Amino acid sequence: MTSGMSAGAVEIREATRADWPAIWAFFAPIVAAGETYAYPEDLTSAQAEDLWFKEPPGRTVVAVDAATGAVLGSAGMGPNRPGRGDHVGTASFMVSPNARGRGVGRLLGEHVVAWHRAQGYAGIQFNAVVETNTAAVALWRSLGFEIVGTVPGAYRSRAHGLVGLHVMHLDLR
Amino acid sequence: MTSGMSAGAVEIREATRADWPAIWAFFAPIVAAGETYAYPEDLTSAQAEDLWFKEPPGRTVVAVDAATGAVLGSAGMGPNRPGRGDHVGTASFMVSPNARGRGVGRLLGEHVVAWHRAQGYAGIQFNAVVETNTAAVALWRSLGFEIVGTVPGAYRSRAHGLVGLHVMHLDLR
Repeated sequence: MTSGMSAGAVEIREATRADWPAIWAFFAPIVAAGETYAYPEDLTSAQAEDLWFKEPPGRTVVAVDAATGAVLGSAGMGPNRPGRGDHVGTASFMVSPNARGRGVGRLLGEHVVAWHRAQGYAGIQFNAVVETNTAAVALWRSLGFEIVGTVPGAYRSRAHGLVGLHVMHLDLR
Repeated sequence: MTSGMSAGAVEIREATRADWPAIWAFFAPIVAAGETYAYPEDLTSAQAEDLWFKEPPGRTVVAVDAATGAVLGSAGMGPNRPGRGDHVGTASFMVSPNARGRGVGRLLGEHVVAWHRAQGYAGIQFNAVVETNTAAVALWRSLGFEIVGTVPGAYRSRAHGLVGLHVMHLDLR
């Protein structure tokens, strides 16, 4: 299975509910690892699915292996706030551990930035990037995001204890 | 009516659903003014009530005139995030324009800080303090909150156009 995911083009398409089992296969262990996301404890698959699939004007996409169709990662995106804050977007990302090294996170990140730009958003805000998730921080920086500030000790990392949560922002104006 | 709210002791107690009409009387115009909150447009009273009353372990309180029982303000509080972020709290505040100058906001703020401290929270995070709401910013600063960072242009103020949203934090460790 790893070999089947080790090469080949990666494509991004709209996610459908039929993709959920494949997303949940990496969503669940990523959340359980306790290093990147603050989701509720003991989230059921159905609850996670409802959180992950964004209502319009938001949307959720998957990154798939163009040859096999295997789901390698997913991103949800849309307004960060309602009302007078809905001109700034946000997004969440999950990449299958089996797909590491294939640039799936970067591809999803570039897609998310391009989508927000095309939709006319004024910027993108990430509300809670775990500071010890250095790969993610470096990726977002490389896409132009800046660390607006860091809330000290706001995340209980399984490995590192209390660590900060970065608020990151990309200005699209 | 204003004269009846102009003096006398202010007390804080748990809010009940029976308080909602009195809260909505100032909630609706405060949101409609477009200077402090990013709630969905065209929020109904019932929808706003569901947003304002926090599920346990969160809670919602009201500040009342000790003599008349009039509701002067309200605050909701509880975990800012679920799961591995639930050791940091957050809160929202509304004070009736009729009650300005009576220290209701400060009293609610002090109550919220004391509650989080008693509950063992590691800190309190405000996610979106409108930077032009200088009275609120000064009040939170006076209670020990610091501006962690400011997301530029993240709020569409009716009077000022695009203004920043402060992330503010009080460390309780």
